[in-house]
Amino acid sequence: MGRKTTRRRIIRLSADGGERRREDTLAAEEPLEIRLGIPDVPGSGQTAFTVTMRTPGDDFDLVAGFLTGEGVIASADDLVSMRFCAGEDESGRQTFNVVEAQLAPTAHAPTPGQQRNVTTTSACGICGTASIDAVGKSARLPLAPAPEDGDDDAGRLPLDVLLALPDLLRERQEIFSRTGGVHAAGLFDYEGNLLCLREDVGRHNAVDKVVGWALRERLLPSHGTVLQVSGRASFELVQKTRMAGINILSAVSAPSSLAVELAESEQVTVAGFSRGSSVNVYTHPERIAIRRNDA
Amino acid sequence: MGRKTTRRRIIRLSADGGERRREDTLAAEEPLEIRLGIPDVPGSGQTAFTVTMRTPGDDFDLVAGFLTGEGVIASADDLVSMRFCAGEDESGRQTFNVVEAQLAPTAHAPTPGQQRNVTTTSACGICGTASIDAVGKSARLPLAPAPEDGDDDAGRLPLDVLLALPDLLRERQEIFSRTGGVHAAGLFDYEGNLLCLREDVGRHNAVDKVVGWALRERLLPSHGTVLQVSGRASFELVQKTRMAGINILSAVSAPSSLAVELAESEQVTVAGFSRGSSVNVYTHPERIAIRRNDA
Repeated sequence: MGRKTTRRRIIRLSADGGERRREDTLAAEEPLEIRLGIPDVPGSGQTAFTVTMRTPGDDFDLVAGFLTGEGVIASADDLVSMRFCAGEDESGRQTFNVVEAQLAPTAHAPTPGQQRNVTTTSACGICGTASIDAVGKSARLPLAPAPEDGDDDAGRLPLDVLLALPDLLRERQEIFSRTGGVHAAGLFDYEGNLLCLREDVGRHNAVDKVVGWALRERLLPSHGTVLQVSGRASFELVQKTRMAGINILSAVSAPSSLAVELAESEQVTVAGFSRGSSVNVYTHPERIAIRRNDA
Repeated sequence: MGRKTTRRRIIRLSADGGERRREDTLAAEEPLEIRLGIPDVPGSGQTAFTVTMRTPGDDFDLVAGFLTGEGVIASADDLVSMRFCAGEDESGRQTFNVVEAQLAPTAHAPTPGQQRNVTTTSACGICGTASIDAVGKSARLPLAPAPEDGDDDAGRLPLDVLLALPDLLRERQEIFSRTGGVHAAGLFDYEGNLLCLREDVGRHNAVDKVVGWALRERLLPSHGTVLQVSGRASFELVQKTRMAGINILSAVSAPSSLAVELAESEQVTVAGFSRGSSVNVYTHPERIAIRRNDA
């Protein structure tokens, strides 16, 4: 199995003329090829559906989460099995870089030859609205309706919990603490308990791994949880949150315009610039309990 | 033409219970569909080659840079023309989100139906070595040979210039200063003069826009320049640097393992954690003039 970090000799140069040779730890990055076995399509599992560059580890979660985000699967029952295919490097070592996912007849299998991005190709190039519509049409897991005004705080995410999530995420980032070079995604419940954390060189992979874990644990749709990410909130991350049936996405940095438009349209609560003392809420603030617990 | 930023009403929540409604500026994100007109392939310009989410603006640079990174083109002469195709949103407004690039016979056109990633599909899933080999085989623009040990500092990038680049980049980031939500890439000469800066919600798009600008200005391969990026250095960014024929990639944050392996193999100098007072050099340090100018 591939390692999550590697060691390398580097040179550290300083402005004062210092030159030190030392060992550095790098986040590992390797290609992962995903093949889909499609019912009644002989040989479908022999060709790549997609190739993504990822940090090795939790690869079945990554595959399950990726397929959830693309609308191919919406339940653990849509996956019959996943396995590492034979794949050897020059020295004959199994690389564990090829996964075949055998889909059940209930899955929404792509047509043969269709590649990613399933939900963001074809009409999506025309305009952002078409991209948003495409996500809406392929979403199969319902979100919880937002609490109505006037309800009490039951079913809302307490603000103090939301504000604490970036620090909770950072404290648990093992690869980041060694390399400084990976993104993280964490799924938390409304009390701030961490359910799952994944790190990866690709922000989308970290989210896919968390979503895939939740799907395989049969926790999706997941209405009492919030997805916290270490970076920005792009259209793609809101798409993945929505497709997983997760209500709230919180980012340490900024969301993009289209991410916010998608979240508004699809009823996802998006928070950004979550920095401990304050947070920006871009869409559907009704899921946040603004009153403090001690009020 | 699409705007680079948009305005939106948001709610800013503070830990002390504060709740302020205000206008916020978001980095724009819109899909861009790239269509390729391929010589002797009728109708080839009618279907999407790829769709990427990007910040609108400098779209012809983005298309040219993307195609350079994929090995489809290696010179401005490989592109006959680029134009925005008709594409209207619901209100009948031209979206400027579809670009058709007409390739010259000299271009390395993908076979019909082949989609991105041209250089990172097929065999690449097996192992990182195959991914590296694929880049090497598709690279058409030569890098300058690294100066030999014992040469004087002619042809090397002075360390003080390298250390200054992140600040020079940040100072010129207009969208970032308004939104805090975009990546940047800048091409500098060895004296620290900025040749081209581009910002985008996608780090790869920012690099594509810079590379496309340089190609269209007939500056590629570009042996006396360094590409500075605001974030991490992934495999994909080293690939784009190598394909453009640029010698040095400098990142504010960490490179991944495969990025460093590719750079080592393909003779690209990679610097990371460039933070003003010091910088890590991961590969081919011989292109850096370690001695200070005043030494």
